[in-house]
Amino acid sequence: MSRAVPPKQREQIVVIGADAAGMSAAHQALRSAKAAGRDVDVIALEKTSDTSYSACGIPYLVSGTVGTTDELSARTPEKHRAMGVDLRMNVTATQIDLDTRTVTYAHNAGGEEEVVRFDKLVLATGAHPIIPEWAVTDGGELVGGVHPVKDLDHARHWLDLVSRRARGGIAIRRRAVVVGGGYIGVEMAEAMVQRGFSTTLLTRSAVMSSLDSDMSERVRETVQAGGVDVVTNTTVADIDIDSVDGHVRSVTGSNGQVYPTDVVVLGLGVHPATELGVAAGLPIGERGGYLPNERQEVAEGVWAAGDCCEVIDRIRGKYVLAPLGTHANKQGRICGYNTVGGSHEFPGVLGTAITRFVSAGTHVEVARTGLGTREATEAGYDVESLVTVGGTASGYMPERSPIATKIIADRRTRRLLGVQIVGGAQSAKRIDTAAAVLWGEMSVDDLAAMDLSYAPPFATVWEAIQLAARRLSDRM
Amino acid sequence: MSRAVPPKQREQIVVIGADAAGMSAAHQALRSAKAAGRDVDVIALEKTSDTSYSACGIPYLVSGTVGTTDELSARTPEKHRAMGVDLRMNVTATQIDLDTRTVTYAHNAGGEEEVVRFDKLVLATGAHPIIPEWAVTDGGELVGGVHPVKDLDHARHWLDLVSRRARGGIAIRRRAVVVGGGYIGVEMAEAMVQRGFSTTLLTRSAVMSSLDSDMSERVRETVQAGGVDVVTNTTVADIDIDSVDGHVRSVTGSNGQVYPTDVVVLGLGVHPATELGVAAGLPIGERGGYLPNERQEVAEGVWAAGDCCEVIDRIRGKYVLAPLGTHANKQGRICGYNTVGGSHEFPGVLGTAITRFVSAGTHVEVARTGLGTREATEAGYDVESLVTVGGTASGYMPERSPIATKIIADRRTRRLLGVQIVGGAQSAKRIDTAAAVLWGEMSVDDLAAMDLSYAPPFATVWEAIQLAARRLSDRM
Repeated sequence: MSRAVPPKQREQIVVIGADAAGMSAAHQALRSAKAAGRDVDVIALEKTSDTSYSACGIPYLVSGTVGTTDELSARTPEKHRAMGVDLRMNVTATQIDLDTRTVTYAHNAGGEEEVVRFDKLVLATGAHPIIPEWAVTDGGELVGGVHPVKDLDHARHWLDLVSRRARGGIAIRRRAVVVGGGYIGVEMAEAMVQRGFSTTLLTRSAVMSSLDSDMSERVRETVQAGGVDVVTNTTVADIDIDSVDGHVRSVTGSNGQVYPTDVVVLGLGVHPATELGVAAGLPIGERGGYLPNERQEVAEGVWAAGDCCEVIDRIRGKYVLAPLGTHANKQGRICGYNTVGGSHEFPGVLGTAITRFVSAGTHVEVARTGLGTREATEAGYDVESLVTVGGTASGYMPERSPIATKIIADRRTRRLLGVQIVGGAQSAKRIDTAAAVLWGEMSVDDLAAMDLSYAPPFATVWEAIQLAARRLSDRM
Repeated sequence: MSRAVPPKQREQIVVIGADAAGMSAAHQALRSAKAAGRDVDVIALEKTSDTSYSACGIPYLVSGTVGTTDELSARTPEKHRAMGVDLRMNVTATQIDLDTRTVTYAHNAGGEEEVVRFDKLVLATGAHPIIPEWAVTDGGELVGGVHPVKDLDHARHWLDLVSRRARGGIAIRRRAVVVGGGYIGVEMAEAMVQRGFSTTLLTRSAVMSSLDSDMSERVRETVQAGGVDVVTNTTVADIDIDSVDGHVRSVTGSNGQVYPTDVVVLGLGVHPATELGVAAGLPIGERGGYLPNERQEVAEGVWAAGDCCEVIDRIRGKYVLAPLGTHANKQGRICGYNTVGGSHEFPGVLGTAITRFVSAGTHVEVARTGLGTREATEAGYDVESLVTVGGTASGYMPERSPIATKIIADRRTRRLLGVQIVGGAQSAKRIDTAAAVLWGEMSVDDLAAMDLSYAPPFATVWEAIQLAARRLSDRM
């Protein structure tokens, strides 16, 4: 009999996607394995030529606030490799086989497909930008000048678009249409204004429609005052394309208006990139994302993290979409722990979000956490709410700016359900205090009574969000 | 038999002290009485000629940031009267008689004392600035050029002192010594620097000694870099007074150094003004303040609010001093409710505080909440702590400034006990998030996991205080 035995294979963790979620998982797995004295190999497959970049930073790159795409990279591929990750760039995973425990991938440059075995698998495939039909040519390409804002290749494309001074020998008039009134839409509208574009923002419903309509209207007013022509309740009905160079010439709104333009920003959100998992038989939710359990597991030995997942809304106890880098990082880390024997749990989200719009003379900040009035009502709460306008600093201080705070609470239990802020400089980050109150399932009375910080440059003696909570508490 | 009956006397509420606590009580009593359909008279006695001013704003008045003392007044006496308060200004309460239910008061301008009956009494007598012996002449007056910073009369005095260009025909060299390294000391040092004074700050222990020493040292470094000569572990041993005009010429530190100066700021804190109550037989605590119960009652039908009270520290469950306008406003309001039959409760404090120091090229913000390491250790906790330096915005954003966060937690229960922040612009107000976590008695893991806001201008993807909590959580 032969004495040869197959060499013991090292434990192999494969991560698909090398951005926030994937690389958080990869490094945490390596750290945890090291701490436990376990030998593991971590292989990461990345479709693009970029790792660990800040998608949220792209509007600030396009606006010129950030100098180079490199600055948006948290870690280069070389750095990841130096830290022990077997990182394979410019490769696209084409198949997951949960029976043979393998992932097949193709080199983007061509050549033979490869197969890699996994003991543990982490899906961190992110999300695709939503591309409407009118933005695509019959040939399946994006119309010239029309582009989404999701990854660094998009960022490079936008830097090119905003730098162009002429097209076909004709000077570009620098007009932009931004489609979508959410976070990316507003941030890109700011970028286009800062680049000197005459900018129109078209939105299906309202600007920042994740806010209640009274708060969203405050945002619309200031964005409009900041030089953006905001058109609400309007979608794109048609697009006019230059027959010579295939470049966009105008879009026609569902309101019948024609908006001549040089570029169109697609800021319509994203949908989870779950094709691979679906083909492998993994279930997805009604919003198209994987449905991880509290340990971020989607199948035996398979975890998922980041924008490809749905997440549990803590207040309603149901799956929602919340494609944000903060969750991706936290979930990735949890996957990393759990692939090497940990049992860490992701405790869900509140729907906290923040942004701002700044142009000459205008500075509006926007934030929200928890449920809006409609969401809370639909969830069965007996909703009471109130908007209070206060100040970010004492009335006599030059840094004072206005802050409108909407407090949403349940009349029966007095539990705080949500807070929305629209205000000037230094207003929006106060949302975190409200998020902490929601996290602790505290009441509107707790928020009104708690010991928050006061000094003239930082707050009014009744802190703005606390004054708002007190007024609602008094009324309830 | 005579049919004459004595006219029914209207219920009378007397408030002693017409600043934040007293006037919050007075107006809430009137509002609550009106809502309940009760007839009450509210009489307020005020020793000075000012009502409802912002003591915290005085350094910004002295610095020139705020233009006039009027701007620091939230409400004038006329406004209070128009709202229904029987406000008697420039009168000093001299005696409280709890048996006859009367308060005796003298007009500061002289004349007969008056006696006013009360059904309900609210003590809102505030605090006295601490005046060391060396600052007082044999005649019992303050040495010329030496002054505290507590009320608007002090503010007016300081405006006069910083405006003087000469004294006795000799040009003033504009040198200032600030004694005391707490909030007022640091804020007045900023004011003096902004007024062009060469400024020395003497402090018995450290700058911001309410912080742990490692954090306090960070403050010292930046205040020093901002142009203040900071001398720690030093008290004033002696003072040299001009024999001609009685004005300060220098102070000598306990370190033997002589500091020539034109003015001396007394920033040594305050002690509760409780003489009246003590004379009337009311108990006070070891820190000299009244000891109200949770409804702010100090005797049957007698309430107290604001700086004259000790307050319950929520974490340790014991009385402490926390003379701050935020507590005064909240407690005054509770007294107002309760004088007309309410049963509102003050839920205690966390010790939250915030300030900043700004001079050319320097901007440091400082905040704390909960217990420091020494306090927590003395309270019997098994203390674990860690300082983490992060950023207030993404690394590629121009508004990013550093933020050092110290997290203090209990190893046994993992409960968060305290947070301290020293950082640049937009760092310190994050303390409120930590305060909310403490209020909800949450753990360091909760702080690390919760859904806080992120966008590049506002935070890093792991929010700074959350990154700090996560690192401590990992280590525990």
